[in-house]
Amino acid sequence: MYVAADTAELGRNPMDRTVLGWSVLMYRKLDGSPVAMRNRCPHRSFPLSKGRLDGDNIICGYHGLTFGPNGSCVRVPSQQLIPPAINTPSLPLVERPPFVWIWMGDPSLADPAAIPNHHWLGDPEFASFSGYIHCKANYIRLHENVLDLTHFPYVHGEDLGGDDYIRAPFKVKIEGDSVAIIRRLEAQPVNAVYGSIIGNLGHRVHRTSESWFKSPAFHVAHAGIEDLDGGIDGRVQFHFKIIHCFTPETAHTSHYFFANARDVRIADQALTRLACEKTRATFLEDEQALELVERLWIDEGNSAYQEKSIKGDHAGVEMRRIIARRAAEEAL
Amino acid sequence: MYVAADTAELGRNPMDRTVLGWSVLMYRKLDGSPVAMRNRCPHRSFPLSKGRLDGDNIICGYHGLTFGPNGSCVRVPSQQLIPPAINTPSLPLVERPPFVWIWMGDPSLADPAAIPNHHWLGDPEFASFSGYIHCKANYIRLHENVLDLTHFPYVHGEDLGGDDYIRAPFKVKIEGDSVAIIRRLEAQPVNAVYGSIIGNLGHRVHRTSESWFKSPAFHVAHAGIEDLDGGIDGRVQFHFKIIHCFTPETAHTSHYFFANARDVRIADQALTRLACEKTRATFLEDEQALELVERLWIDEGNSAYQEKSIKGDHAGVEMRRIIARRAAEEAL
Amino acid sequence: MYVAADTAELGRNPMDRTVLGWSVLMYRKLDGSPVAMRNRCPHRSFPLSKGRLDGDNIICGYHGLTFGPNGSCVRVPSQQLIPPAINTPSLPLVERPPFVWIWMGDPSLADPAAIPNHHWLGDPEFASFSGYIHCKANYIRLHENVLDLTHFPYVHGEDLGGDDYIRAPFKVKIEGDSVAIIRRLEAQPVNAVYGSIIGNLGHRVHRTSESWFKSPAFHVAHAGIEDLDGGIDGRVQFHFKIIHCFTPETAHTSHYFFANARDVRIADQALTRLACEKTRATFLEDEQALELVERLWIDEGNSAYQEKSIKGDHAGVEMRRIIARRAAEEAL
Repeated sequence: MYVAADTAELGRNPMDRTVLGWSVLMYRKLDGSPVAMRNRCPHRSFPLSKGRLDGDNIICGYHGLTFGPNGSCVRVPSQQLIPPAINTPSLPLVERPPFVWIWMGDPSLADPAAIPNHHWLGDPEFASFSGYIHCKANYIRLHENVLDLTHFPYVHGEDLGGDDYIRAPFKVKIEGDSVAIIRRLEAQPVNAVYGSIIGNLGHRVHRTSESWFKSPAFHVAHAGIEDLDGGIDGRVQFHFKIIHCFTPETAHTSHYFFANARDVRIADQALTRLACEKTRATFLEDEQALELVERLWIDEGNSAYQEKSIKGDHAGVEMRRIIARRAAEEAL
Repeated sequence: MYVAADTAELGRNPMDRTVLGWSVLMYRKLDGSPVAMRNRCPHRSFPLSKGRLDGDNIICGYHGLTFGPNGSCVRVPSQQLIPPAINTPSLPLVERPPFVWIWMGDPSLADPAAIPNHHWLGDPEFASFSGYIHCKANYIRLHENVLDLTHFPYVHGEDLGGDDYIRAPFKVKIEGDSVAIIRRLEAQPVNAVYGSIIGNLGHRVHRTSESWFKSPAFHVAHAGIEDLDGGIDGRVQFHFKIIHCFTPETAHTSHYFFANARDVRIADQALTRLACEKTRATFLEDEQALELVERLWIDEGNSAYQEKSIKGDHAGVEMRRIIARRAAEEAL
Repeated sequence: MYVAADTAELGRNPMDRTVLGWSVLMYRKLDGSPVAMRNRCPHRSFPLSKGRLDGDNIICGYHGLTFGPNGSCVRVPSQQLIPPAINTPSLPLVERPPFVWIWMGDPSLADPAAIPNHHWLGDPEFASFSGYIHCKANYIRLHENVLDLTHFPYVHGEDLGGDDYIRAPFKVKIEGDSVAIIRRLEAQPVNAVYGSIIGNLGHRVHRTSESWFKSPAFHVAHAGIEDLDGGIDGRVQFHFKIIHCFTPETAHTSHYFFANARDVRIADQALTRLACEKTRATFLEDEQALELVERLWIDEGNSAYQEKSIKGDHAGVEMRRIIARRAAEEAL
């Protein structure tokens, strides 16, 4: 399943979003539960999202054909009989705030249990925020970008980590269709981003990072800071969760839903707003870099170009293998 | 034959318009008669419409090659001899105000008699107007739209006809390559559009409509109103003609030339102007709906989509068959 | 070799330009010498031109891979070892002010001796200027345009030459892979352009023109004016060189580097500036005409169109043959 929307986007105004190349209609029923269906009226291809809701049903803006939340036609205004074969494919949704997940395949195969765990978003022990960026790059590049942190000082400047960070030894762990890159830096000055949130700038810390590709839709990074210089108010362990949800829009564009959670200064809403702004600005730097890469692939393709990998790509290359294998299996 | 221009568009400034994918040059000779030819200089592909007229001839703006109104080269400035093989295909035009019709095929097959009758435009018993809309939709969708009036309350609001109108029984009549949808509503309150023109708002009327696909280029709707409550100044029969001329520009765009005629309040020019404005606004609603449909066809195509028809599509489906058959015959 | 840049464009800011469909990075080393390489990082396709220079090396803006001026990777920040196979193809450059020439093929075949002679640019006996225009037309059309001067009065007005000029007899000379069109007009009033530069407006002159296609990259026109009415300060011979360098960008766009040299009033810098402005304005007229031609080729292609040639195309047709033959030979 992929993230189709932020929970706050969905309401009583029909919205459309392209997912995996298909235009999707989404709205909430009167009881608040979200529904999704192909956005293309089966009668004459009008986008249903340009129509209007009538209770839990959507009325097409062209000839008034009306569809229930399961995609079945429930009314054809110009005739009494409703032809049984007129319906638009319903698409399973699962709401897990702050996100709404969609299954674009055979509905009988939709498996909410496949949604990776991200309970920290909404957990009262954590403060969290979420946001959205439209990306002009294929979603695999986005996964690759978060699996290879050696781009930090070049795309984002030194605040996230400099050459010391990217040279730190790392391990790649593969578990089924998941792959992680794991790093531990010992007894180094806390970096600017975490230090300013925790309030321990200047302290030495152990920093651990486990960054997990969990599914083609989802990546979560667990960052841990252990303060070696007394901590703050006696506390020395701090945790951060950075969640990246990548949803293919077209072959060259993606939806990027991100979220963060932290277990420090959780009541500080001004800090949360500031962290959200800074996170968005950082991820926009990624987006702008990847858009340049996508542009070269669009213009030049693969001819007379052979991509080369380095050690830091280990996890990304494993991720590509997993996605390629799963795509091949689905094509059988 | 298709409509290529409104008579008022054509003059002594060379104009170009793309018809069936070909760029066409049009202008009027000194005697006022219109001529058309392929707009691409046979020498080096310069658009002749960017040149200038010299009497009845067009001078190319690149090397000055000059072509007569029949497309033959009559002068090559850089040499004495005119090579006999240099000419641009002439395209037959027939002027029938307010429109100029073009034949894009073999000139020997051009048949002005094939232009459907529309004598009401210009008939002194009728007041009329015409206009133009550029449409980002295939012309077949435009035909379909005017053959299926069940979209009225959804695309245009209730003024043209509500659910009672679209549920009224109708007949489909096929005559050769023409197809019509015929409706009769008895003893109903006159609708807002006709009532405000006739001046009989509140009266009960019989309303008849015969809406004819006459050719791939032309559709005419005959609307008749019979006033059951005494009429206006003793007159009870009123007639309206709505003419739609659709000309393919490219696979995804069309030229929409429209015209209306009425036999009531024919001297009221303010009414004519107002009706023209309202008609254009109404047809722009159609255009915007069809542009959304075209967009989905361009983005998603036919894959994983199977269009379904309802009873109201009967005439439209027949029209599609006629066009498909004629295209297949021409391809032989 | 093709011209890739004006010498003044190249400096310590990495620049990119698309040549023959490939994105190229160019910059100057600390010693001022220019270098070029494929602009696409061999690691993950980031455009190197968006990175920054470190001495003579370029640092990729994505992961910091650093490449020497010969395209070899000299540093991978995230690891000690530099994989030997990571490099971006270096592209030979030759600087001949005011232009920098590039060789896009096998570097071992780069032959600076193949750069056509244009010593007048920079020769102290001549005043010269150069400029650049981005063209939305294929480079072969640009060559054709300068080999066929019969477009002068139609694209540029009468100042460069009128119907008398374009009807003057001409010869076509072919020497190996070069082709020239040669004209001589005797005892005619000097034209507006040359007359206002020389200062002999109203005088009768002999005017000679030899316009040479020297390579797919280069065209030079030699114009000579011999004053028959006493000349200026006793001098009667005046020479002008007009140089056109055309570099394919994509199939439908080109880079147009132009330069002019004259051996009259060479110290008059205001005249040079004015001549540069007027030349640019004139060549923009060509560009706009050719863009219209390219547009028709893109929209309509070759179907139902057969290009016809006239006598004035003799040299252009020979040029097309030479380019077609060379392309076929390279494809072997």
